[in-house]
Amino acid sequence: MPGSVQSIERAAAILRLLASSSGRLGIGEISRSLDLAKGTTHGILRTLQHVGFVEQDTDSGKYRLGAALLHLGTSYLDVNELRSRSINWADPLAARSGEAVRIGTILDGKVLVVHHVFRPDDTFQTLDVGSLLPLHACAMGKVLLAYSADAARAVPLEPFTRRTLTRPDDLARALAAVREQGWAHEVEELTPGEAGIAAPIRGYGGLVVGAIGVSGLVERLCDSRGRPSPALVSYVREAARAVSRDLGSGRA
Amino acid sequence: MPGSVQSIERAAAILRLLASSSGRLGIGEISRSLDLAKGTTHGILRTLQHVGFVEQDTDSGKYRLGAALLHLGTSYLDVNELRSRSINWADPLAARSGEAVRIGTILDGKVLVVHHVFRPDDTFQTLDVGSLLPLHACAMGKVLLAYSADAARAVPLEPFTRRTLTRPDDLARALAAVREQGWAHEVEELTPGEAGIAAPIRGYGGLVVGAIGVSGLVERLCDSRGRPSPALVSYVREAARAVSRDLGSGRA
Repeated sequence: MPGSVQSIERAAAILRLLASSSGRLGIGEISRSLDLAKGTTHGILRTLQHVGFVEQDTDSGKYRLGAALLHLGTSYLDVNELRSRSINWADPLAARSGEAVRIGTILDGKVLVVHHVFRPDDTFQTLDVGSLLPLHACAMGKVLLAYSADAARAVPLEPFTRRTLTRPDDLARALAAVREQGWAHEVEELTPGEAGIAAPIRGYGGLVVGAIGVSGLVERLCDSRGRPSPALVSYVREAARAVSRDLGSGRA
Repeated sequence: MPGSVQSIERAAAILRLLASSSGRLGIGEISRSLDLAKGTTHGILRTLQHVGFVEQDTDSGKYRLGAALLHLGTSYLDVNELRSRSINWADPLAARSGEAVRIGTILDGKVLVVHHVFRPDDTFQTLDVGSLLPLHACAMGKVLLAYSADAARAVPLEPFTRRTLTRPDDLARALAAVREQGWAHEVEELTPGEAGIAAPIRGYGGLVVGAIGVSGLVERLCDSRGRPSPALVSYVREAARAVSRDLGSGRA
């Protein structure tokens, strides 16, 4: 990118690499992965460590992500309007549907989960906020793809189950159906036994800025023929419309 | 710092500024706050925007933190050993004590909350993960200060209530008592009506790497004379010892 600051781009690449490697990396591994000289990598890592964005293992000398990023990440959530406007509608949707509710937006060709309300029962559940989901294999992702002109072209159609849409034509047809009906669903395309239903959240001027959806076991979300429950679909769509209204989708 | 990369330090300063300003900032405000030329600020912001660390308001042109930081922040949590080792002990502590449980570590002269288990009842509670608490005014902070040689010197003794310890002598006495008894408490020093009890988590070699604590209403945590409940103190200390054991505190 012209006019960009190269060392910042490299620093960001190191942070992304550490995030995707889910653990600790040595300076040699980082240099090789990003094709940087070891001295260059070392200078960037020292600075990232100084500002708290990476930490170094005392024993192994390896690097991992730093605590300052956690605070920045939650500060992002504090000012995120999609999230703050959605919170009031996500809780009632979880209560009405009896299912887990998530709100997502596009980041780097994935769905970034910015809010998650647990299914209202006592089972153990893990908070998904901050996770990335594949665009083509979840209901929120299909919504975001359906209303994004350029995102659909670049999506790698990785298979997760035998029902994942891995052919561009199948995905294109599914996205056309989403635009037609105004909501998306997914049955065992990401995880066997699980399904999802999602609808678009529109911001200022009607632009789709996010998606809200429920997800859970197929037998609770779908009828015996595998079609999503009409009641759940209308709960999700009503919640999506309510958030959109709060975000000013009617104004332009 | 010698050998550091100036543009990365400046980029980090901009991100911290955006996090602390809890909202959106224009390029002029950012340049003035950090004493940078507008052209320099613009180049850094463009790059940060390109890597997803900041976003720009389409209407106002102002900048805010970006979605990529949320993913990096939760990736930090995934590899954080203090957190992963604590999770198994935090849930039982919440169940036994009936209070909210938090686990914290030091970041930038504050307590960074890395895990939070809600009080086991149906009341509305907000997730504190990623929040920063003042070291001198909460029980976890007193623990972290008591076992950190240099942190105590630099702490600004900001008053939050009339009971906050704002005199260096009072704080030094309180920290000596924490070291003496092996745990810390706080009664209405941060928030009127609330109290906290915390104990140190020790890592490899016995070094204090974090704190675990319960917090809640004074009348539930303390007796009629305002002393912390001995039962709660021992629950907290037992949980702290269990986490420390899992972190290898006995090995050196």
